[in-house]
Amino acid sequence: MTFDNLFNAQLDQLKEEGNYRIFAELERQCGKFPRAANHTDGEAQDVTVWCSNDYLGMGHHPAVIDAMVKTVEACGTGAGGTRNISGTNIHHLALEAELADLHAKEAALLFTSGYVSNWAALSTLGSRLPNAVILSDSENHASMIEGIRHSRADKVIWKHNDPEDLDRKLAALPSNATKIVAFESVYSMDGDICPMAEIVEVAEKHGAMTYLDEVHAVGLYGPRGGGISEREGLADRITLIEGTLGKAYGVVGGYITGSAALCDFIRSFASGFIFTTALPPAVAAAAKVSVAHLKTSGMERARQRQQVAKLRARLDAHGIPHLENDSHIIPVMIKDPVKCRQIADILMADYGIYVQPINYPTVPKGTERLRFTPGPLHTDADIEHLVGALATLWKQCALSRAVA
Amino acid sequence: MTFDNLFNAQLDQLKEEGNYRIFAELERQCGKFPRAANHTDGEAQDVTVWCSNDYLGMGHHPAVIDAMVKTVEACGTGAGGTRNISGTNIHHLALEAELADLHAKEAALLFTSGYVSNWAALSTLGSRLPNAVILSDSENHASMIEGIRHSRADKVIWKHNDPEDLDRKLAALPSNATKIVAFESVYSMDGDICPMAEIVEVAEKHGAMTYLDEVHAVGLYGPRGGGISEREGLADRITLIEGTLGKAYGVVGGYITGSAALCDFIRSFASGFIFTTALPPAVAAAAKVSVAHLKTSGMERARQRQQVAKLRARLDAHGIPHLENDSHIIPVMIKDPVKCRQIADILMADYGIYVQPINYPTVPKGTERLRFTPGPLHTDADIEHLVGALATLWKQCALSRAVA
Ligand SMILES: Cc1ncc(COP(=O)(O)O)c(C=O)c1O
Ligand SMILES: Cc1ncc(COP(=O)(O)O)c(C=O)c1O
Repeated sequence: MTFDNLFNAQLDQLKEEGNYRIFAELERQCGKFPRAANHTDGEAQDVTVWCSNDYLGMGHHPAVIDAMVKTVEACGTGAGGTRNISGTNIHHLALEAELADLHAKEAALLFTSGYVSNWAALSTLGSRLPNAVILSDSENHASMIEGIRHSRADKVIWKHNDPEDLDRKLAALPSNATKIVAFESVYSMDGDICPMAEIVEVAEKHGAMTYLDEVHAVGLYGPRGGGISEREGLADRITLIEGTLGKAYGVVGGYITGSAALCDFIRSFASGFIFTTALPPAVAAAAKVSVAHLKTSGMERARQRQQVAKLRARLDAHGIPHLENDSHIIPVMIKDPVKCRQIADILMADYGIYVQPINYPTVPKGTERLRFTPGPLHTDADIEHLVGALATLWKQCALSRAVA
Repeated sequence: MTFDNLFNAQLDQLKEEGNYRIFAELERQCGKFPRAANHTDGEAQDVTVWCSNDYLGMGHHPAVIDAMVKTVEACGTGAGGTRNISGTNIHHLALEAELADLHAKEAALLFTSGYVSNWAALSTLGSRLPNAVILSDSENHASMIEGIRHSRADKVIWKHNDPEDLDRKLAALPSNATKIVAFESVYSMDGDICPMAEIVEVAEKHGAMTYLDEVHAVGLYGPRGGGISEREGLADRITLIEGTLGKAYGVVGGYITGSAALCDFIRSFASGFIFTTALPPAVAAAAKVSVAHLKTSGMERARQRQQVAKLRARLDAHGIPHLENDSHIIPVMIKDPVKCRQIADILMADYGIYVQPINYPTVPKGTERLRFTPGPLHTDADIEHLVGALATLWKQCALSRAVA
């Protein structure tokens, strides 16, 4: 195969840089989360998962599992078509109503993933609105970046979480532009939270639409899990709120919410919505139960926050540096892809601790890290075990630095 | 909301053209397929679905349902992360092995949908291979078109299913180009099948890579359901075979298969693969059982073919014109969006027959149609009922034409 040479050349470069990825081969086991079986090297090893985005363990919640099982048994395993061609099921509509209610919006629209919802919605807005200019936070997620790029609308990048820079950039645009400010609430890799009130203020001042990705916040923040926009009482001032069903809600899928006209517009024109098989009804039913559960139950969030605070405190006590932020995400910076993988390998092999080394392209080169996401099901003993392991490794590193 | 005016203006135009879409609100019911409950106008109405892409009813197959239920109960409802960050499960890997075997390729790679697999694979190949030129069949699916567009590679469109035109266009390219010929086996809206041997011949002559979408063929053609490429004994000469798990296999998800280096390349560089939550393990487990079942069971395919032939013969007997093709797809051309919807509405209301009117942008304006997909579970009585209803409507139309 001559083409293999082309592929291998680029793969070899990744390997040289230490950026080649090896996936951990897990077996999730109901009732045992955050424990899982790691099959990566053949034999199964029991590990504690410290990097899951099933942030609250809802993917193992009995009511969510029950909804999925019952709906598979009642409706089968798939939707059988695109949303337009026989694929719309009453479970999709019920979930869309639940999500509209979650964000107190008129309507919601379901996609196969959060990635596709960002990509499809932004590319449709950017390409179909007259003189669209998308103002994108410099640290926006790949799915937004690709959607903006695909739209071929004018794009202006503003400094991460800097409303003043946004203000200047909005002011410089022609008055006939349709301005769309795209940003996230919780940034997943640094865990920092945007100054939402200021951003909304600035956007309103310039008559700009606001497009907010709450992927790492829905289910986790706000009294009903409506995200940072709910917590700050700002949801009604945001034009479009986007989220996922695959992280705190523990299932899979993505969505947007907004006015009825907005959702109908995306429904009617977005290629990534139209030309693809709908999610299985059972996925929609499970997600609906998860969303509904976290609207009334604050227990999971409270316990998560407690364990996040505990891990932070114990890291501090051991002098292990981590990025400060106000979210549930605890990044420990390593700043080298090879070392990052080495530490993760030792944690897995010697301590049964699974934390994926995060490297390029998920984070910029030179900012490689371990990213810990403590959840309500991590015990205090889990935390002690993790911190003990890290402390040992840090001491060895300090030692090796001292004798080097 | 001032933005709503922008959205409504474009929606109004769709409505004026008759291209505004109304989704049927269905409730699939295990054991009753192709029957379903239609909730569109409030009260539930029993209907027979004639436009499902769950072509063989595998979405209601007991073994597929059982695999999904058991895996939800064992592993939970979601993967809990992207493939790289805690989201890879043994069920994903088992499915990838099954798919590689299906197409007799070294490797396979799973995506959240067929749409994403096309979009992500083509945009990665087009953007990362040196001097890439993508030669795209003029009737390729939206997901391929968007992937090609996103890659920003040079694009050459060749005449639909015309190897001679492809030959001429390949010959005109500079010798240093990396040429990628992208096409489908079964085109979903006309149901025609590509002249695969000739296309492969031409591609090989010019040293071009072949990219084949078998979305409407996998599970349905070839002794093991490997698609038209298997039936024609050409799979080993195709560089990349893409497919879906959401149509004949009855679940959801998409994939590519090819050399190990090719799959590793897409795995390592494709944004649409990297930055999204993995499919639920239970979806992968169900799909694997479905793929494996159709590798050995030919019963469903044989019975489907029988019912397709019967419907064609009965349409012919009643003088109802339909597009000729060698596939399982029977398009009845209406060529007007308003009439197409009217006929579909009457079929649903008066006869309990659900066939979605297919309009722009799924097909070009002026080629609106009803698209029937008979399956193994449609009875002879179902066929008679459908043909009887169509014959009545056709007579009324002829009458109304005569008196007009
Ligand atoms: C900020 C952000 N937006 C969107 C997505 C995509 O969501 P999903 O995993 O549902 O595709 C992710 C991560 O996967 C994300 O981190
Ligand atoms: C030819 C073709 N390719 C790809 C797709 C997308 O596959 P999926 O529905 O799995 O997203 C479709 C239809 O949905 C299709 O018709």
